[in-house]
Amino acid sequence: MPNLHAVIMAGGSGTRFWPASRARRPKQFLPLARGSSLLQATVTRMAAVAGRERTWIATNPRQAETLDQAVAGFPRERVIVEPEARDTAPCVALAAAVIGAHDADAVLAVVPADHLIEPQAHFETLLQRAVAVATEHHMIVTFGIRPRGPATGYGYIERGERLDEASPAAFRVARFREKPDLDTARRFVGAGNFAWNSGMFVWTLPDLLTAMASGAPELAAATQAMQQAARAGDPQALHTAFARCPKTSIDFAVMERAPRVAMIEADLAWSDVGSFTSLDAVHPPDARGNVTVLAEGARAVVKDARDCVVYGEGRRLVALFGTSDLVVVAVDDAVLVCPKDRSDDLKKLIEHLRESGHGDVL
Amino acid sequence: MPNLHAVIMAGGSGTRFWPASRARRPKQFLPLARGSSLLQATVTRMAAVAGRERTWIATNPRQAETLDQAVAGFPRERVIVEPEARDTAPCVALAAAVIGAHDADAVLAVVPADHLIEPQAHFETLLQRAVAVATEHHMIVTFGIRPRGPATGYGYIERGERLDEASPAAFRVARFREKPDLDTARRFVGAGNFAWNSGMFVWTLPDLLTAMASGAPELAAATQAMQQAARAGDPQALHTAFARCPKTSIDFAVMERAPRVAMIEADLAWSDVGSFTSLDAVHPPDARGNVTVLAEGARAVVKDARDCVVYGEGRRLVALFGTSDLVVVAVDDAVLVCPKDRSDDLKKLIEHLRESGHGDVL
Repeated sequence: MPNLHAVIMAGGSGTRFWPASRARRPKQFLPLARGSSLLQATVTRMAAVAGRERTWIATNPRQAETLDQAVAGFPRERVIVEPEARDTAPCVALAAAVIGAHDADAVLAVVPADHLIEPQAHFETLLQRAVAVATEHHMIVTFGIRPRGPATGYGYIERGERLDEASPAAFRVARFREKPDLDTARRFVGAGNFAWNSGMFVWTLPDLLTAMASGAPELAAATQAMQQAARAGDPQALHTAFARCPKTSIDFAVMERAPRVAMIEADLAWSDVGSFTSLDAVHPPDARGNVTVLAEGARAVVKDARDCVVYGEGRRLVALFGTSDLVVVAVDDAVLVCPKDRSDDLKKLIEHLRESGHGDVL
Repeated sequence: MPNLHAVIMAGGSGTRFWPASRARRPKQFLPLARGSSLLQATVTRMAAVAGRERTWIATNPRQAETLDQAVAGFPRERVIVEPEARDTAPCVALAAAVIGAHDADAVLAVVPADHLIEPQAHFETLLQRAVAVATEHHMIVTFGIRPRGPATGYGYIERGERLDEASPAAFRVARFREKPDLDTARRFVGAGNFAWNSGMFVWTLPDLLTAMASGAPELAAATQAMQQAARAGDPQALHTAFARCPKTSIDFAVMERAPRVAMIEADLAWSDVGSFTSLDAVHPPDARGNVTVLAEGARAVVKDARDCVVYGEGRRLVALFGTSDLVVVAVDDAVLVCPKDRSDDLKKLIEHLRESGHGDVL
């Protein structure tokens, strides 16, 4: 696919993986994907379809500095550095401008850096379908994940009619739906025509600019200014134009307003890995429900324990003996022990650490 | 007290403090005594009465090598190295021989290296009383701790009549009693004339040799042979004689058989620190029952947690968030998480670690 460029959005931070994640080491840098970082796994996945030379990482200046920790040897010239974190719409606009300066007819596949997806081969097939729909139908294409349960942590996509006979698994999008409460989620899953919104999109550059122009004119104007600045090689003008982008999400600015949106229905093992307790989506539990995720050199021994999550880094052994329903995280300079049902509430601990003079470990 | 020599028995290992304790780093090496090791605290305590130049450490060859970790700068010439671990009777016999070679009229105070005792000043007074009883009455003197509850983990001493008006808190020993079951322990404590057997003893060298000769003649013979070897400066003969000592405890070989045994009744905060859950004897819990013991450089943050024990070493922060009734131990190369009510059962985990190829962290 010579025209396809992959843009990996890697600017997020994420406190829900403390102490593994830090201000300078966001979730996508963590080795949560069977030994490699989520970001490395995403690069591998996208490069398999778009090619390494058309795979880009969009991130903020701080993470750009330490990118080698997560993706050793990724070429600097394909790192798109956002001058500041301004949500996903400015990120996509900047990527569109930089890539558009090289290739005005590019097809963009924009994906978050911190998702787990399996199997790889099936994802590749679906991505190729998405590109076909984007180029042939001139639609904006999103990926809807076939729900594996009534999750309340994801937005949903209500699908409309099938696009055509030639594009199996491709549907019109009827509506985007906010994260539902549990009853609503159950209804969605029961209805059969709802999918999890994965936050992965495919579009041609001209179609994206058209959608922006009608739905988010300020964003469209900033994008054009950035594209001119990128062509002229004027970083100052690029930054100025970036600062004019509205601080909003690409979902809100484009997807939910565009008249022609398609959905590829994806039956994948997929997780946005929201917290330690969601690791079981890709790391199968042992017979007693314990999930163990270890970076190279780390060891874990789980004895007489059940339904625990262990995450280890560094040359150390983590031993759980007789415990249940705990999250235990051990990295070089910090250890966390917390019941599973409190692990979504880590922000409270983070605040407490900041206020009590332990900001250096955040 | 020019004639008093303190002998600190430091040969024990102890798996109940894993992963803080290791084969080469026994419990008495751990910084469990308010920032210093138990052994260092014991050296300080005994040297305050016997003098630094008459304070000895008896230990095995392996721990002798790493003694500086626990007591920096302790002089090599006052380390008594047991050729092999053979229980406490051979240890005391060797110490008696080595010290007796210098000073045949020495008074020996023999104490374990791994006890916590407070307050220091009161202990000093009691030790001086014990020395007075040993020298004036020619009795073997033991310390009985006034019980703070019906503990089943300690042996008990049943006291007899008061020794005399001149020695307050000194009694004849009526009987030594094994570790009791809970009902028996309650009866002992209720009766008022029982004390915890602290395993600390004071005697003159001639009285010890007399008691050995009548109660444990093999041990007495070996002791005399060791004393000759020590005077002659013949380490080979010393080792040979040591190997002839029966492998038994000093309690069994001497104390329980000696006709004239006295007890100093000691109202001290005392603990033999049997496990992590016994640290509260000397490290007071916070308002929610959490006990925190940290070596230099380590930090702990306990948030919304109750009745937990945290032990930390090294430059790391241990965070407990929302937990209850857990023991959490974090050292450089290992982390243990275990419910308090399983912490006395650590041997089972240790065996499992050994059998599953993780013997390097033991």
